[in-house]
Amino acid sequence: MASIEGRATAEASPNIAFIKYWGKRDEKLILPQNSSLSMTLSSTTLKTTTSVVASNKINEDTFYINGKKLEMSDPEVRERLKAIGIMRELSGTTARVLAVSSNNFPSSSGLASSASGTAALVYALNAAFGLDLKPKELSMIARQGSGSACRSMMGGIVSWRKGSRNDGSDSYAVQEFSEKYWGEVIDLIAITSHEKKKIPSRAGMKQTVETNPFFTQRKTSAEKRLREVREAYRQKDLDALASLIMADSNEMHALMLSTVPSIRYLDSSSLKIMDAIEELNASEGGNIAGYTFDAGPNAHIITLKKYERKISSMLADIKGLEALEFKSSAQGSGPKLLTGVSLINEERLAPA
Amino acid sequence: MASIEGRATAEASPNIAFIKYWGKRDEKLILPQNSSLSMTLSSTTLKTTTSVVASNKINEDTFYINGKKLEMSDPEVRERLKAIGIMRELSGTTARVLAVSSNNFPSSSGLASSASGTAALVYALNAAFGLDLKPKELSMIARQGSGSACRSMMGGIVSWRKGSRNDGSDSYAVQEFSEKYWGEVIDLIAITSHEKKKIPSRAGMKQTVETNPFFTQRKTSAEKRLREVREAYRQKDLDALASLIMADSNEMHALMLSTVPSIRYLDSSSLKIMDAIEELNASEGGNIAGYTFDAGPNAHIITLKKYERKISSMLADIKGLEALEFKSSAQGSGPKLLTGVSLINEERLAPA
Repeated sequence: MASIEGRATAEASPNIAFIKYWGKRDEKLILPQNSSLSMTLSSTTLKTTTSVVASNKINEDTFYINGKKLEMSDPEVRERLKAIGIMRELSGTTARVLAVSSNNFPSSSGLASSASGTAALVYALNAAFGLDLKPKELSMIARQGSGSACRSMMGGIVSWRKGSRNDGSDSYAVQEFSEKYWGEVIDLIAITSHEKKKIPSRAGMKQTVETNPFFTQRKTSAEKRLREVREAYRQKDLDALASLIMADSNEMHALMLSTVPSIRYLDSSSLKIMDAIEELNASEGGNIAGYTFDAGPNAHIITLKKYERKISSMLADIKGLEALEFKSSAQGSGPKLLTGVSLINEERLAPA
Repeated sequence: MASIEGRATAEASPNIAFIKYWGKRDEKLILPQNSSLSMTLSSTTLKTTTSVVASNKINEDTFYINGKKLEMSDPEVRERLKAIGIMRELSGTTARVLAVSSNNFPSSSGLASSASGTAALVYALNAAFGLDLKPKELSMIARQGSGSACRSMMGGIVSWRKGSRNDGSDSYAVQEFSEKYWGEVIDLIAITSHEKKKIPSRAGMKQTVETNPFFTQRKTSAEKRLREVREAYRQKDLDALASLIMADSNEMHALMLSTVPSIRYLDSSSLKIMDAIEELNASEGGNIAGYTFDAGPNAHIITLKKYERKISSMLADIKGLEALEFKSSAQGSGPKLLTGVSLINEERLAPA
């Protein structure tokens, strides 16, 4: 087989789902029960940067995240890093990979570090292995590491078509709207907790699929609402968009609550923010913002740039709310390669 | 028509649902979408006492609750007091009714004052009009004033069979187990809020039936779980019973959360209590208690008398929980007539 020595550094951002992904139809290939849709965030606010060396001189695949070496014997780690093996095979080489990754935000706090991490890795591997794969193909590879990561392979508003084939070849991400189509739309994030999730999403989804009586109906409901979100976005109808976003977040958290045993990610702060946004919308006589929560308590408030100050000060006034931090994110343009930058300390490349 | 002069005083208690009622198939007759099951509470802890005079000397139906005269021109009041007209007709008289009612607990705080109030009224009217109706018939009359009130017409564990006829003649309450069958089962109530509900149950249910994609599935799920609850109770299996009770509470609140716009009755305190009970059960290696919430934030913890002290002290230790009051209720024996007692001030009987 060919020998190779490739290097690349890429950055990618998390995405926030307007139509949620919760439940797989195939655990191994990570094929979802329903299509989903999200907004890719801006790397200015949130990003993972990953440097990769693919070389026949490296003895074994090694991955450092925020300075910590991952344990490759852990089956969950191997699942998440599946892209390395897939892309090595596609490259026709036996090169091993050293990857060093760093987030500019805390992981496991519901801010989707696994999405940005997987997307950055896949993007960097594509360059390091010299594969030149298209975004659609890259999204299918990212999907197999962490489902929602496939939506971080593109910028703006991205949908993940669930597909129907058993081999997953029609389950990939599609850019619905460029980040320039309605660039005023932002995500105002209220970080209220840095605690690690009590129940990992992967295990939680499995419980839902196995025990939840509402699950079948969720599939139909999500597809229908996705079409409505696409249309509201196309028309730049903030009132309708916010309403749909809140409804879908509530539907996913209802699905979690009605799983047996119950899965709960929303906390006291989440409830206070939900109440406050609904009151604000009522006082405005129409929705100017919509809350949404992924598998964690931190609130994402989807609104327009011009309402940012009004909403921030409203949030700051909520009695008893302990928001640790606010972050405002515009829409991102998707992953990109960084030149002349590397997180890799050359000493790490020396054989042990 | 015959003239009449009847007097009676009755007391009745609220019930706490193990299988929840949420959604009507007939708004006017109050016919539910699914059967439900509850435990009637003890009058020692919670009760409504209602005195009734039915007399041809009274000019118009009048109802005082906790000292306040109800406005009969309000359509909602007329709906709630439908029993007066129904029972007058059954009596074959034209007598009007003066009723005076008093709760020993705050109304509209999710403690089901409408259930105990309606049950006490119906029970007193039955005696005052000399009707001698059976509990099953009384439950059908109570149902038309406030659905879940029909379950307060009997003691112990009571189910409300949803029925299938359009005229409601097969939608009534049945005693499943006497209060003596498993008398150790109690309801430990943590009152964390006295606020009036933001959304009345009646309006909330209607929203759910009209907008909720999960609603159809809820009907099947509730009937199945009701059978499981009955079996767990028959076997005095606390572990299974507690698990089913929590699952059904979560399923109803999930149904509310996924209604558009979302209906939320659980608050920060409710979430803290849910977490604490689940942790307690985990540390015991099996469920010794199950939480359940009606349309309000106050927690009902179903457990056995012998665990009361352990659970009370655990609840008292929850950080940041502001429980206003704890009440412990055994199972009640259903409504009863009180002799030699009346809430009616004779002056109120003098013509205006």
